[in-house]
Amino acid sequence: MLVAVVILAAIIAFTAPAPLPAADLAAPIFVTTIPPGYRDWRLISLSHEAGNLNSIGAILGNDVAIKAYREGKLPFPDGTIIAALHYGHVPSAENNKVFGQAQSFVPGPPTNIQFMVKDSTKYAATGGWGFATFVDGKPAAAESMKGCFPCHNQAKASDLVFTHYAP
Amino acid sequence: MLVAVVILAAIIAFTAPAPLPAADLAAPIFVTTIPPGYRDWRLISLSHEAGNLNSIGAILGNDVAIKAYREGKLPFPDGTIIAALHYGHVPSAENNKVFGQAQSFVPGPPTNIQFMVKDSTKYAATGGWGFATFVDGKPAAAESMKGCFPCHNQAKASDLVFTHYAP
Repeated sequence: MLVAVVILAAIIAFTAPAPLPAADLAAPIFVTTIPPGYRDWRLISLSHEAGNLNSIGAILGNDVAIKAYREGKLPFPDGTIIAALHYGHVPSAENNKVFGQAQSFVPGPPTNIQFMVKDSTKYAATGGWGFATFVDGKPAAAESMKGCFPCHNQAKASDLVFTHYAP
Repeated sequence: MLVAVVILAAIIAFTAPAPLPAADLAAPIFVTTIPPGYRDWRLISLSHEAGNLNSIGAILGNDVAIKAYREGKLPFPDGTIIAALHYGHVPSAENNKVFGQAQSFVPGPPTNIQFMVKDSTKYAATGGWGFATFVDGKPAAAESMKGCFPCHNQAKASDLVFTHYAP
């Protein structure tokens, strides 16, 4: 009977809402809050992904990120945040009319905003980086985020960051 | 003889180096000094020009520009400066290797930096905008700048500015 009570208590402890946040027990994997003020950050570079992504993006950095990039400092220090603002890559009928030919592409509706947040303690399990994707202001499903680290981990020489600074 | 002297004097006056800067007598047409600090300005939007231009660009604005854009204020107030940082649109072998397919384009070497400077008095003859193109830090030949105003003048509804703000 005592054994049964202990087992039951253990089951309840595992399944019932915990009085202390369970997330505190394990290292957080993904960033689920949009870093404030990111739209005012300075430009790191740009990107154009053709194919299925069909996106054009601006990569911005907070002050820590910009300083590290400009000084060529690797690895990026804790506190670095890099933002990638992605938009659909759409033709501009307005511009093409003025140019007299189809050549101009501009940002369409936003597709997602992604962040890399450097915290070598908090995100030790993923190379010191916390990854985030927001669509319409909401974090993407954790399942869809599992590919971030293994992919970025291929850019080890640049501390898992693909983007180079544009002069 | 007197007539000949007067004519000669007139010719000299027109051809000799003037003691006062001649440029002060007429409204300046083009901007020939790079606005300081532009690389720290905030993002307005992005552009991709295919065809012969083959460029990818970031459009940045000074504080006056960003405020006007965010408030939807037209015409842009005096003091507005908009910068377009253009780079070659080049494939990234590094990124394509990770993606496993050719899809990624990034900024190559800078091609030019262009500015629009709003000063409705100084640049009254060109819609209130002074235009500038710098290649390797040097202003482009005035001759090559003659097309700026007539082309931008086709965007009268947005105060001669083609770029829309990207959210």
